[in-house]
Amino acid sequence: MHILVLGAAGMVGRKFLERVARDGHFGGREVTRVTLHDVVMPAAPAGAAFEAICLASDFSEPGEAERLVADRPDLIVHLAAIVSGEAEADFEKGYRINLDGTRLLFDAIRAVGEGYCPRVIFTSSIAVFGAPFHDKIADEFHLTPLTSYGTQKAIGELLLSDYTRRGIFDGIGIRLPTICVRPGSPNKAASGFFSNIIREPLNGMEAVLPVSDDVRHWHASPRSAVGFLVHAATMDTSAIGPRRNLSMPGFSCTVAEQIEALRKVAGETVVARIRRVPDPTIQAIVAGWPRDFEATRAPALGFKAESSFEEIIRVHIEDELGGRIG
Amino acid sequence: MHILVLGAAGMVGRKFLERVARDGHFGGREVTRVTLHDVVMPAAPAGAAFEAICLASDFSEPGEAERLVADRPDLIVHLAAIVSGEAEADFEKGYRINLDGTRLLFDAIRAVGEGYCPRVIFTSSIAVFGAPFHDKIADEFHLTPLTSYGTQKAIGELLLSDYTRRGIFDGIGIRLPTICVRPGSPNKAASGFFSNIIREPLNGMEAVLPVSDDVRHWHASPRSAVGFLVHAATMDTSAIGPRRNLSMPGFSCTVAEQIEALRKVAGETVVARIRRVPDPTIQAIVAGWPRDFEATRAPALGFKAESSFEEIIRVHIEDELGGRIG
Repeated sequence: MHILVLGAAGMVGRKFLERVARDGHFGGREVTRVTLHDVVMPAAPAGAAFEAICLASDFSEPGEAERLVADRPDLIVHLAAIVSGEAEADFEKGYRINLDGTRLLFDAIRAVGEGYCPRVIFTSSIAVFGAPFHDKIADEFHLTPLTSYGTQKAIGELLLSDYTRRGIFDGIGIRLPTICVRPGSPNKAASGFFSNIIREPLNGMEAVLPVSDDVRHWHASPRSAVGFLVHAATMDTSAIGPRRNLSMPGFSCTVAEQIEALRKVAGETVVARIRRVPDPTIQAIVAGWPRDFEATRAPALGFKAESSFEEIIRVHIEDELGGRIG
Repeated sequence: MHILVLGAAGMVGRKFLERVARDGHFGGREVTRVTLHDVVMPAAPAGAAFEAICLASDFSEPGEAERLVADRPDLIVHLAAIVSGEAEADFEKGYRINLDGTRLLFDAIRAVGEGYCPRVIFTSSIAVFGAPFHDKIADEFHLTPLTSYGTQKAIGELLLSDYTRRGIFDGIGIRLPTICVRPGSPNKAASGFFSNIIREPLNGMEAVLPVSDDVRHWHASPRSAVGFLVHAATMDTSAIGPRRNLSMPGFSCTVAEQIEALRKVAGETVVARIRRVPDPTIQAIVAGWPRDFEATRAPALGFKAESSFEEIIRVHIEDELGGRIG
């Protein structure tokens, strides 16, 4: 089995590839080759038994998408995207990569022809939804993004469904919750604090909380995100029907509940490292974000996530801290 | 005021232009110039007091969209599209005109810059919805098209909202019901029979009904369609909010109710000209179509349609038959 991963240098891509390297197989098939692609050179996962080909290029350049699918990968995991803030700041770059790039990839698959019909996994986002919405966003709620990034993801979802319906590929779009706890350093993403207030205190560092404790949000761990990709890659897609884009399961909680879970897992000393510094700009951005979902289709199709924020913290401690709190 | 109409040779475009020629003004502003564009040469409406410029070209060709918006029309009515059946039969043509053409137009408006921000009206379609759905489709129901045409219209809606949010133009997307009674000759569209069974009998001709009498569908007259465009062109858009695409009002009824209305308006002799010839292909297509809507936003914003099928028939008799039944 040959897998192509676009956006392989990103956090989810790296963790997905580590899992593939560890498992060595996919739905009972041996993984023989993985092509890792990103705009910066991705690194092959350590200890992989398969051939790993690492490529760096702009996949929206003419001919690039064709080159990537020319040797007919069986599974294509399309994680490549300009993130929300950058797509908002750079209109043309966001549309070029997130919309044109996605379409060029889909059209390159179509151009291969001769019965080629790979499984394609497209990571969408809860940014396809825009306020106002109900407290819990149901599977049938309409997509009214309030960012160019969300617009581009919603368009990708529509293309995915149509190309799948046409038999060009076998596509699944997965709308990821906010991934928490994100490993690494604090970044400037408006959503960064949801992870920072857990990761940094566990690491002996101070973290800034810019919003009030009653802000509610929708989370899943990096391990769950990888689990979604693996399940989407191996499941029987005939059960999905024509609506190929699914809101993934997650866990909804307030910042206060996040902090309470941290207290239970790591104690008061760790929690005391959270410093409240209200930031009206971040508060305004976060106010327009989804808070909770009634995601029923994805769990019914076998997608699984954490069922408490304590579990999300424990996954972080196991996967990133070797099981120990620093 | 300068108006640009794309798709000006189509039925809705022609009727819209006749209305503009008759009224001579728009929301209190005198219409001084109208540019009519289509892929075939459109005809200027009779008796117009304004300058009419008629152009034929493929607006998806490089430079065409820029040329059309270069003299900064105040209002752009974008009706141009490859219809459903053709977009399904010719994948590339459908995407080129319905998606790329629309995006090229929107980007051409953006390229004008210097504070240019025209009102843009985009005609979408109930084809953005795909079965299964509830008996009445609510304003918040998700868009899951089952045709490439519906996919392309749904993408146009997303672009319209994002470009409007960005301040590139002031856009409104209007999802038209099936237009009934369509004037002209019977055509091969799968939806043609909804009009044929009224228009042809009124004209002394036989018409074929390919589906059963209990098929329910969603209708508005050509006069209402023009009314939607005029209202969208002149309304205060600040009341719309960020969700710029609206399901237009219409009237839902079964074929039996259509026939009963025809009987009331025109009598048994006319109704007797409907011949039942079941067509399984058309029955299967129609089974996937929306039947009824709970369209609350558009009426609240001032959009109006007929409230009975008798009214729809009377509009046809007034507007197409000079008030007389043949």
